[in-house]
Amino acid sequence: MIPTHIEHIGIAVKNLEEAIAYYEKVLGMDCYAIEEVQEQKVKTAFFQVGQTKIELLESTDPAGPIGKFIEKRGEGLHHLAFAVQGLEDTLATVAERGVRLIDKQPRKGAEGLNIAFLHPKSTYGTLTELCEKPAAE
Amino acid sequence: MIPTHIEHIGIAVKNLEEAIAYYEKVLGMDCYAIEEVQEQKVKTAFFQVGQTKIELLESTDPAGPIGKFIEKRGEGLHHLAFAVQGLEDTLATVAERGVRLIDKQPRKGAEGLNIAFLHPKSTYGTLTELCEKPAAE
Repeated sequence: MIPTHIEHIGIAVKNLEEAIAYYEKVLGMDCYAIEEVQEQKVKTAFFQVGQTKIELLESTDPAGPIGKFIEKRGEGLHHLAFAVQGLEDTLATVAERGVRLIDKQPRKGAEGLNIAFLHPKSTYGTLTELCEKPAAE
Repeated sequence: MIPTHIEHIGIAVKNLEEAIAYYEKVLGMDCYAIEEVQEQKVKTAFFQVGQTKIELLESTDPAGPIGKFIEKRGEGLHHLAFAVQGLEDTLATVAERGVRLIDKQPRKGAEGLNIAFLHPKSTYGTLTELCEKPAAE
C-alpha cells in the first residue's frame, strides 16, 4: 500500500468559531462544511487546500479525545490522515508489519469516509489515520 | 492570499533512520532526499505523497528547536507548511491581519525554498510555515 495523498490534517482548537475566522480571514481559505461527530465528541470544520483538507476539531466534551488532548498539550496539530485504496487490506498489512491498530476494522468518520486510526506508539509519535472513500452504492 | 496546497508537514522524530524505515517499509513511501539544515540544527528526510511532502526532522543539537520540542512534547507533528505565491506580500498581509511573524522576511529553507514561519500563538496553536519556490534564475 502506498497512500495516494494526504486526505486531511486534524487540528485541535479550543474555539471553532475563532479558529474558522483565522483560517478564513487571515489565510483566505473557505470553510465549506461544519459537522458534529457525536461518537468522537467533536465539532469539525473543513477547508480544502489543494488535494488536502484542514479539519479543525473542537471538543464537545472535556472527557472526549480532543478535550483530553487540549488539556494535556494545548491547541495544535492532532493527526495526519492518508488516503489509501483498499482500507481493510491495508490495515491487515500494517498490522503484520508491527503497527498497533486503534481501530481493527474500518469505521465511519466525518464526511462519510471509512477510516481507521493507527496508534502513535508505533508510528513514531504521529497519530495516523487511514481513510478510504466508500464504494459508490 | 490563498495557499495553493500543503507544501509539507514537518514531523519531529528522535531517530531519523528508524522513522524512515517505518515510512518506507510500513507505509510504502519512498524517501527521496536527506538534507542537513545546519542553521536549524536538523537533519531532514523527505517523502512525496500526492502534492505534499512529509518532512521528518531529527535534531542534531538538543538546544535546537527540534531538540527542545521533543524534550517538551515528544515525537510527532511539528509544523504545517502552506505553499503560497508572493511570499513577501503574503507576510505583510498576514502581519496586517494580526499574525505575529517569527520571520519578518523570507529566508532560505530546505530544498531551496523561500520560507517564513508564523508564531503558533497567533495561529491557534499550529506552528505554520509559508513557502514559495524561488523564481527561476
